[in-house]
Amino acid sequence: MKRIETGIDGVDKITGGFPEGRSVLITGNAGSGKTIFGLQFAKKSCEQGFKTVYITTEEDSTDLYTQAEAFGWDLHKLNEEGILNFVELASIRARVTEAEMSIDIEAMKGNFSKFLNDIPEDTETVVIDNIGSYTAKLTPYEFRDRFDLLIYELKQRNITTLVILDSATSKEFNEIALFSVYGAFKLMKRENPYTGRRERVMDIVKMRSTKTPTQFITYEIDSNGIKIVSSVDSDEE
Amino acid sequence: MKRIETGIDGVDKITGGFPEGRSVLITGNAGSGKTIFGLQFAKKSCEQGFKTVYITTEEDSTDLYTQAEAFGWDLHKLNEEGILNFVELASIRARVTEAEMSIDIEAMKGNFSKFLNDIPEDTETVVIDNIGSYTAKLTPYEFRDRFDLLIYELKQRNITTLVILDSATSKEFNEIALFSVYGAFKLMKRENPYTGRRERVMDIVKMRSTKTPTQFITYEIDSNGIKIVSSVDSDEE
Amino acid sequence: MKRIETGIDGVDKITGGFPEGRSVLITGNAGSGKTIFGLQFAKKSCEQGFKTVYITTEEDSTDLYTQAEAFGWDLHKLNEEGILNFVELASIRARVTEAEMSIDIEAMKGNFSKFLNDIPEDTETVVIDNIGSYTAKLTPYEFRDRFDLLIYELKQRNITTLVILDSATSKEFNEIALFSVYGAFKLMKRENPYTGRRERVMDIVKMRSTKTPTQFITYEIDSNGIKIVSSVDSDEE
Amino acid sequence: MKRIETGIDGVDKITGGFPEGRSVLITGNAGSGKTIFGLQFAKKSCEQGFKTVYITTEEDSTDLYTQAEAFGWDLHKLNEEGILNFVELASIRARVTEAEMSIDIEAMKGNFSKFLNDIPEDTETVVIDNIGSYTAKLTPYEFRDRFDLLIYELKQRNITTLVILDSATSKEFNEIALFSVYGAFKLMKRENPYTGRRERVMDIVKMRSTKTPTQFITYEIDSNGIKIVSSVDSDEE
Amino acid sequence: MKRIETGIDGVDKITGGFPEGRSVLITGNAGSGKTIFGLQFAKKSCEQGFKTVYITTEEDSTDLYTQAEAFGWDLHKLNEEGILNFVELASIRARVTEAEMSIDIEAMKGNFSKFLNDIPEDTETVVIDNIGSYTAKLTPYEFRDRFDLLIYELKQRNITTLVILDSATSKEFNEIALFSVYGAFKLMKRENPYTGRRERVMDIVKMRSTKTPTQFITYEIDSNGIKIVSSVDSDEE
Amino acid sequence: MKRIETGIDGVDKITGGFPEGRSVLITGNAGSGKTIFGLQFAKKSCEQGFKTVYITTEEDSTDLYTQAEAFGWDLHKLNEEGILNFVELASIRARVTEAEMSIDIEAMKGNFSKFLNDIPEDTETVVIDNIGSYTAKLTPYEFRDRFDLLIYELKQRNITTLVILDSATSKEFNEIALFSVYGAFKLMKRENPYTGRRERVMDIVKMRSTKTPTQFITYEIDSNGIKIVSSVDSDEE
Repeated sequence: MKRIETGIDGVDKITGGFPEGRSVLITGNAGSGKTIFGLQFAKKSCEQGFKTVYITTEEDSTDLYTQAEAFGWDLHKLNEEGILNFVELASIRARVTEAEMSIDIEAMKGNFSKFLNDIPEDTETVVIDNIGSYTAKLTPYEFRDRFDLLIYELKQRNITTLVILDSATSKEFNEIALFSVYGAFKLMKRENPYTGRRERVMDIVKMRSTKTPTQFITYEIDSNGIKIVSSVDSDEE
Repeated sequence: MKRIETGIDGVDKITGGFPEGRSVLITGNAGSGKTIFGLQFAKKSCEQGFKTVYITTEEDSTDLYTQAEAFGWDLHKLNEEGILNFVELASIRARVTEAEMSIDIEAMKGNFSKFLNDIPEDTETVVIDNIGSYTAKLTPYEFRDRFDLLIYELKQRNITTLVILDSATSKEFNEIALFSVYGAFKLMKRENPYTGRRERVMDIVKMRSTKTPTQFITYEIDSNGIKIVSSVDSDEE
Repeated sequence: MKRIETGIDGVDKITGGFPEGRSVLITGNAGSGKTIFGLQFAKKSCEQGFKTVYITTEEDSTDLYTQAEAFGWDLHKLNEEGILNFVELASIRARVTEAEMSIDIEAMKGNFSKFLNDIPEDTETVVIDNIGSYTAKLTPYEFRDRFDLLIYELKQRNITTLVILDSATSKEFNEIALFSVYGAFKLMKRENPYTGRRERVMDIVKMRSTKTPTQFITYEIDSNGIKIVSSVDSDEE
Repeated sequence: MKRIETGIDGVDKITGGFPEGRSVLITGNAGSGKTIFGLQFAKKSCEQGFKTVYITTEEDSTDLYTQAEAFGWDLHKLNEEGILNFVELASIRARVTEAEMSIDIEAMKGNFSKFLNDIPEDTETVVIDNIGSYTAKLTPYEFRDRFDLLIYELKQRNITTLVILDSATSKEFNEIALFSVYGAFKLMKRENPYTGRRERVMDIVKMRSTKTPTQFITYEIDSNGIKIVSSVDSDEE
Repeated sequence: MKRIETGIDGVDKITGGFPEGRSVLITGNAGSGKTIFGLQFAKKSCEQGFKTVYITTEEDSTDLYTQAEAFGWDLHKLNEEGILNFVELASIRARVTEAEMSIDIEAMKGNFSKFLNDIPEDTETVVIDNIGSYTAKLTPYEFRDRFDLLIYELKQRNITTLVILDSATSKEFNEIALFSVYGAFKLMKRENPYTGRRERVMDIVKMRSTKTPTQFITYEIDSNGIKIVSSVDSDEE
Repeated sequence: MKRIETGIDGVDKITGGFPEGRSVLITGNAGSGKTIFGLQFAKKSCEQGFKTVYITTEEDSTDLYTQAEAFGWDLHKLNEEGILNFVELASIRARVTEAEMSIDIEAMKGNFSKFLNDIPEDTETVVIDNIGSYTAKLTPYEFRDRFDLLIYELKQRNITTLVILDSATSKEFNEIALFSVYGAFKLMKRENPYTGRRERVMDIVKMRSTKTPTQFITYEIDSNGIKIVSSVDSDEE
C-alpha cells in the first residue's frame, strides 16, 4: 500500500504517511487545529503532485487563504497551477433569504454523496472540512449508513481523503465514524498530569496495517503549522 | 488583517487584538465578568474612533452606565459624542401585560437578524449582550443555522463583533457557537490545583490566523476592570 | 447606589450591603440556612427603618417566629410596630380538600406576579421564601420569562428584595435565575480539601457594581444566626 | 418546643431529641439501618408514655418483632400494654390475585392521607416505614404536593413523626421531601478518606430551631441497636 | 430463626448462614461468580438434607453440570438421589421458530409467579438464576410489585431462596429488588486503592436480624469454588 | 471440554484456549485490535485443521488480506486450501443506489440468524466481525432475544465462535451480550496509574469452567500480531 506524506514530519515518521486511496478521520474540539491539519495536508499533497480538492462547508475560501498565509503557505499559487481547488458547499451566501434557508435545512440532511458529484474526475486527494455541518436531523443509524457509503465510494475512486468531523456533533456520531475509516486522529488540549501545564496532544486512534503508538503525541502550532514535539517512536503496530 | 485593541492590555499583548470585521465569542457563567469585558471593549473601541453599538437584551442601559461608572468609565460622554449607542432589544418594559408577553415569547424564537436591522449603517463595532436571551425553543440545528447566518452577515458588513453567550443556555449551544466565530474566549472561576485557591481564568479557545496560548490566562476584576495577571507569553500559534 | 445592611457583619463588610431597589438571589440545599439568612436580613432591614414584608410559601409564620426566637430575634415586636409583615401564600390550609388541591396545582403555575399584588404599596424590602414552590410545570423558558418579569417589576417599585430558590428545583432553573438578579449567593456544605472537615461556605456568585471575593466565604450558624468566619478581604471587584 | 428522646443517646445529646408535633425524615440505602432507627425510636417513644403507631408498608409486623428481638427489644409487651400498635398498609396478602393487584397499583398512587385514617385519634407518635412504597407513578410536583399535605396534617394533629423514605425512590423525590419536614437525617455507608475503611455515617441534614453539627456522625449497629461513635459536639446551630 | 449453611465457610462464619424460609439476593456483573455462588449453595443445601430446586433461565442444565464438575461437585449424584432438581424455564429451545419467539417475548413480561408453579410442593430451597431474564418491558413500579409478590409467596411456602439478578438489568431494578429481600449480597471486581491490584469483593448489603460487616469481604474463585480471603470479623450487627 | 488454541500464546496459557463448540465475545473501542484478534484466531484455527469461516460486515475481504499480510499471515494460501472462507455480509456494494439502501436498513434489523444460513454445513469455527453492524433499531430486549438465539444455534451446531461487538453500539448492548456467551474479553487502552503511560490491556471478563485472572492482561500489537506482555499467572478460577 502506497503512502502519501501529510506535511507534518512527526506524523509521517510515526505512521509512514496516509494510505493512498483510503480515508483518515480527524476529530477535535474548536481550536484544536483541525483546519490547520487539513490545510497542511492539502498543501503537501499538492507538492507531491496529487490533484487535490479542499471541500469547505463552514468558512469561505478567502478565510482559508488568509489562515494559510499566516503559516507562509501560498495556496493561491497552487490554485493557479490547477493542482489545488476549493469547493464551497452549502455556501451560506446561497441561503440569505429566509425561504431558501428553510429549504436548505431539509436538503442538508445527509446528502453526503453530493460531495463527490462536485469534484473533478481526476481528483486524487480530498479534504472535507467539515462533515459535521451535514448531519442535521440524522439518526445515529442513518449517519452510519450514509457515512459508510461515502467512505466506500471514495475508496472505489481511489481518492485519499482527510475527513474532519467537529466534536459539537454528538459524541455518538464521533464514535460511529471511527469504524468506517481506515485511520483516525483525535486532537485535544489536556492538562498534563505530571507538569500540570495544558498541552496539545493527538491520539492516533487507529491506522489499519500500520504501526501506531499507544501514547498520546504532543504537538504545537507554531509559525510553520502543526509540529510534533514528542520524541517519536512507534512502540507497537 | 487589521486588529482592534480590546482595552484589556494582556489580551491585546497575547492576541494582537480582535481581528477587524470578524466576530469573537465570549462565554461564561454568571459572575464571570462577561458584561465587564463587553463594556471595556466597547469603551476602547470608541477611543480608537470606531462607531460602536452596545446591544443589551437583559439589563437596561441605566444599569450598564452604573456598572461602567464603578470602573471610572464615562459612557455618558461617549454617548453624547455620538460614538457609542445603546440598543435595548426585547425590552422587558414592552411586555408587561400578559398578552404581550405570550406573543413576545414566540417572537423571540431566533430572530437574530433583527439585531442588524436596529443598528446604524455606519456601525463599525458591535457588542451583543447576550444572545442567549434569544434561543428559546430553538433546536440545536436551528440555532446553528441562524447563528451562522448572523455571523456571516456581520462579516459582510465588516463589523467587528463581540458576542456574549451565557452558559445557562444549553452546553450544546455553547459548543455549536464556537464553530462559526473567528475567535472565542471562555471565562471561568476554578480552584487552582496547586494553590488550592479559587481564581478567575480565561481560556482563549480559538483565534484564527493568530498565535494563542494553550495555557489558561489568569485575570482579576479590579477597580479598572479586567486585568490579566498571568505572565503573558503566547507559546504557540 | 445606596446600600442596605444585611445583618450579617461579614457580608456587609465584603459587599457593602445589598443594593437598594435591586434583587439578590439566595440558593442552597436543605439545611444550608437560606431561611435563617432571610430572617436575619428581614430583621436588620426593619431595624434600618424599611417597611419589610416576608413572603412565605412553605412554612407558616408561627414556625418562622419560633425559628427567629431560637436566635433571640423578637419578630413579634417588629410585627406589632407595623414595620414587619408576613404574607402566607398558597397556604396549605386552603387546599386540604382534594378538589381544591387539584385546582391549586394548576394555579401554582408561574403566578409570580401575584406576589406583588399581596404586599402594601409602601413596602421597601421583601423576602420571598421560596420561589421554588411556584415553578411546577414551567418550562425553563417560561420560568426565565416570568422570573425576569418579577425582578423587573420589583425594580420598578424600587423594592430591595432577597429571593430564595431551593436547589430541589431543577439545576437549570437555578442557573437561569442567576442572570436576571443583581446579586446572587450560593450556600453549601462541602468537605474542606485541606482539613478534611465539612464546613459551610457561601459563594458570592455575582454582585453588579460591587467588589466581590473569588474565594468561598466560610460561615457558621451559631446562637446569633449566620456568622462569617473567613478572614474577610475582597480581593477583586 | 418540647422534645422527645429518640432512644439513640448520641442523637439526643446532639439535637436534644425530636421536636414534639413535628416530622423528621430518615433517608438511606438498603442496609443503612432505617428500620432499626424507626424501631428504636418507636420503643423509646412508648417508654416516654406516648401512644405510638408503627405503620409498615413492606414487612409484616412478625418480621419487625423478630428484628426487634435481635436487639433485645420486647415489642410484644409494649403492644399488649396498648401503647404500641402496628398498622400493615397495602398488605401484600390482600393482593395475591392478579385482579386485585392491578387495582391496587392504581390505588397506590399517592394516597398518603390514608395513613392518617387508619391510626387512632389519640396517637401521639407515628413511624411511617416507608413512604417510598406509595410514590408509584407520581410526578415530582404531585409528590411534593401530597407529601406537603401529609406533613401539614400530622402537624395539625400534633403528632411527632419519623418518616422513612428509601433511596430507590428517585433522587428527586428525596430532595423534595427534605423541604417540607422539620428535620432530616441521611444514613449512609462511605469509605473514610483517611482510614480507607468503610463506615456508617449519618448526616443531620437539617433540624429547624436546633443546633446541628456540620460534620457527619459515625455510628455502628451493635447488639443494642444504633450507637453513635463520633465524639459528639454540636459545633453550630 | 434457623439458618442454612451456604457452603462458603467465610460467609457462614460472618452471617451464621442464610435465614430459613427467607430470600437472599445476589447481584453482580458478568464474570463475578453469581452462578458459582448459586451452585455452591445448592450443593450445600442438598448436603444438609433440604429438597432443592435450581431454576435456570439462561444456561441449560448440561452446562451447569459441567461448571460444577470443574469444582469437583457431583450434581448428577445429587440429582439421582432426588434431592436436587433442575428446572429450565423459558428454554430457548422452545422458541427457535420466529413465530414462537415473538409470542414468548410478550409472555416473558413479569410472569414471576410461574416460577412457583413449576416446582414440587415439598421444595425447601430454591435458587433462581437469573430473574433478570424476566424483566423485559416492565416499568420499575411493575417490577417492584411483581418481585414483592414473588418474595412474599416464597416466604408463605417457607422456602429458603437465593435469587440472582444480573446487573445488565437496569440499575434501578437492582436497587428496587434490595428492599423486598431479607438479605442481599453484591459481587464485584474492583481495584484495591492500596495495593493497586484488582480483586473480587462482596458487599453484604443487608441481612435482617443479623450482624453484618460494614467492610467489603475479599474472595477468590479457586478449584473448590468461592473462598473468602478477608480475615473475618463481623464488626457490627 | 476440548479447547482450541487462539494463536495468542499468553491467552492460551492463561485460559487453556477457547472452549470447543462455545462462543466467546470480544468487545473494545476502535483501534483496540479486535479485528487483529479475529484474524489471528482464524489463522490458528485453520492451522489446527478446523474449517473456518470469517464473516465480515464492515471491511471487504481484500482489506482483511492486506491487514493479515502486514503481520506475515498468508490467508490467501489458507483460502486456496479450502480451510478458510470469507463471507461478506450486507456488502456495501450491494446497496449503492438509494432505493436499495433504504430497504437494506430495514432488513438489517436483527437478522442475526442469516449469518448461519450463509456458512457451509461442515463449518467448525466462525469469526463474526462485527455484529454491531446489525443492531440498528433493536431495543435492548430484542437484541437480547436475538443474540441469545444466535449463540444457542451456534452451540447446537457445535461451532466454536468468536463474536466481535464494537463499543459504538450502546453500552447496554455490550453488557447484555456478556450474559449469553461462554467467555468474554474486553480490549482497551488505559493510562497505567503507576507508570503514567498509556497501555493496551484486556480484561478477561468471564470464561465458564475456566480459571481466569482478576488482573488486567497487558498486551502489545507488534509485527507478529497481538502479544501478551504481562507475566501470566491465573490467580483464580
